[in-house]
Amino acid sequence: MKKVYLDYNATTPIDPRVLESMLPFMKEGFGNPSSIHSYGMAGKAALDDTREQVAELLGSRPKEIVFTSGGSESNNFAIKSVAFQLRERGKHLVTTTVEHASVLETFRYLESFGFRVTYVSVNKYGLLDLDELKTALTDDTILVSVMCANNETGVIMPMRQIAEAVKERGILLHTDAVQAIGKVEINVRDIPIDILSLSAHKIYGAKGAGALFIRGKVKLIPFIHGGGQERGRRSGTENVPGIVGLGRACEICRVEDLSQEKGLMDLRDEIHMKVLERIDGVRLNGHPDKRLSNTLNLSFEDIEGESIVMNLDLEGIAVSTGSACSEGNVEPSHVLLAMGLTKEQALSSLRFSLGRFTEKEDVNRVMDVLPSIVERIRLLKKGNY
Amino acid sequence: MKKVYLDYNATTPIDPRVLESMLPFMKEGFGNPSSIHSYGMAGKAALDDTREQVAELLGSRPKEIVFTSGGSESNNFAIKSVAFQLRERGKHLVTTTVEHASVLETFRYLESFGFRVTYVSVNKYGLLDLDELKTALTDDTILVSVMCANNETGVIMPMRQIAEAVKERGILLHTDAVQAIGKVEINVRDIPIDILSLSAHKIYGAKGAGALFIRGKVKLIPFIHGGGQERGRRSGTENVPGIVGLGRACEICRVEDLSQEKGLMDLRDEIHMKVLERIDGVRLNGHPDKRLSNTLNLSFEDIEGESIVMNLDLEGIAVSTGSACSEGNVEPSHVLLAMGLTKEQALSSLRFSLGRFTEKEDVNRVMDVLPSIVERIRLLKKGNY
Repeated sequence: MKKVYLDYNATTPIDPRVLESMLPFMKEGFGNPSSIHSYGMAGKAALDDTREQVAELLGSRPKEIVFTSGGSESNNFAIKSVAFQLRERGKHLVTTTVEHASVLETFRYLESFGFRVTYVSVNKYGLLDLDELKTALTDDTILVSVMCANNETGVIMPMRQIAEAVKERGILLHTDAVQAIGKVEINVRDIPIDILSLSAHKIYGAKGAGALFIRGKVKLIPFIHGGGQERGRRSGTENVPGIVGLGRACEICRVEDLSQEKGLMDLRDEIHMKVLERIDGVRLNGHPDKRLSNTLNLSFEDIEGESIVMNLDLEGIAVSTGSACSEGNVEPSHVLLAMGLTKEQALSSLRFSLGRFTEKEDVNRVMDVLPSIVERIRLLKKGNY
Repeated sequence: MKKVYLDYNATTPIDPRVLESMLPFMKEGFGNPSSIHSYGMAGKAALDDTREQVAELLGSRPKEIVFTSGGSESNNFAIKSVAFQLRERGKHLVTTTVEHASVLETFRYLESFGFRVTYVSVNKYGLLDLDELKTALTDDTILVSVMCANNETGVIMPMRQIAEAVKERGILLHTDAVQAIGKVEINVRDIPIDILSLSAHKIYGAKGAGALFIRGKVKLIPFIHGGGQERGRRSGTENVPGIVGLGRACEICRVEDLSQEKGLMDLRDEIHMKVLERIDGVRLNGHPDKRLSNTLNLSFEDIEGESIVMNLDLEGIAVSTGSACSEGNVEPSHVLLAMGLTKEQALSSLRFSLGRFTEKEDVNRVMDVLPSIVERIRLLKKGNY
């Protein structure tokens, strides 16, 4: 039985071309980039090349890229470092109710240091209320953090308008672009974002590598203090293979993925249409259009999404209820609750997230089994009443 | 020309057995351990197995192990989290003058938050002054951080006596064991260390993975906030391949390295003896015996260590002047200065650090070229006067 993986927003397989770029640095090319001998210089040169690849995807300068251990570190780094750096200038921070846990929990932590945080709400489509954002900005505001695209629904935030509103007030803007990178074009030459987080393992790179774009003028307290790597912004011996893979992953995204969005969207919409045709009581979570081309989040009336996930898993099909990042957590999604869903509706959600290796055959396999699974669970549930 | 790598304290090659354990998780086993489907469960099971391997090496319980991105993160995590967690209880911290930069710079950062730090000095052998440590402890002291073994000199600190002195006062004890793990036995069942940092790439694992032992009773503020991975102590999708490799690396250290210390020491001492025989004006930096079996730090009168490093590099031999962690830095080692060396003596240091793949032939290769390199540089320097 061919396995079907439709959980690309949780993590992607490593592209074989990315793995190939990494392997030499896990074998003979193992030097510490801070060493001055030839082993070290080879590592350092690899980091320099990678910095260019990441910068090219984002439209930044290479020296504005700082490597981290992944998206969660990048988000913690950006938010904590700005807050502590500017704590004498202001104590007010702004974000939204639908951010990833690595953003929300970081803001909650900062509240314990006396920072005040405004959580701007979203409408039923998951889109941020721009007027509410503008109203939230005060003279005491030092940072706004809004994600580019939501991991659970794929909803794309109006980054350009957000950036204009925030920069008009001279406030720093951070964006969690972990889910958006490689799926929509984000160019920091065009949009005045100050700090941007990305992660390798969401774009066919390896777990354990990520980056932060930090605009040249922005000074940040280091997140990890130490030997002064990454121009003193992030110490610690660099994860050279992971970082090299990130660079290659960015290059492939730039050259291929951004131009192949349409094909992915067609496959996704085929699942959507067929589900609507064959299963009753289904609703779309998220905006119909302003959404990543790979993401489909549906609620199935009267069913817990988790039951569907586990039944599909028995058929060799991997999907998700939403975020993969809350270990063993059966709480309803904070994102869907923020969009106005009831607890039951939120718990009945199922997320399909497609990717580079998704084929028409995968869609067929899902539709071969999903309708009968839903029907069976609904019948069982009625029987239990 | 066979290359000779004698810079194992900077980073080690990945043991082929470790790489083999990692590869399945970079291919089909790519799932996110937080996903509830079979891809995710495979990742989660791998993390559980690894936690046992690390715990077995340290003598801890598996749930006392938290995975991080490496040694620098582990040190930052331990020190910042204790300080911020206990900031209401006390504002005084204690460390030594010879710690790794990721410890020292973290303490300096905490000074900007109103913490007072005492830097306990070392004697000419690089050993901590135990009486000075005891005198430094006050009712306001909340944390002591002392490394197990020094990365530059290999000097091994008297951890048992340090732990007794610190625990007698009910103060938390952290140790940076990055260089000691796999080279000397450290058992947290025997020695009452509360928090211990380790890194994979110093023990034949990959860069980008590390761990923190946190004794069960100790509560720490998370370093990376987010989805609640690692029982809420360190969020972010786990670097599964890197962590699996760390586990395998710990297992190999436990079974092989700790029993093969003598062979390594013989090779190291052979370099030492032959250098003393054939080159004048050489002194050992560090304690003659209380020292890691793989580390040899020598000062060569009238020469800059960096010149020797670069000349040996041309012969395909990799050694170091000391720490590899200070990018492009030609400052004299803070460790050697703390031991009372002059700036000139400190700048004339050369570190040989041997490891699992070092052979007798490597020692011969070094001795074939080192005496003439030293002689040539000394002559050149005289000519320039």
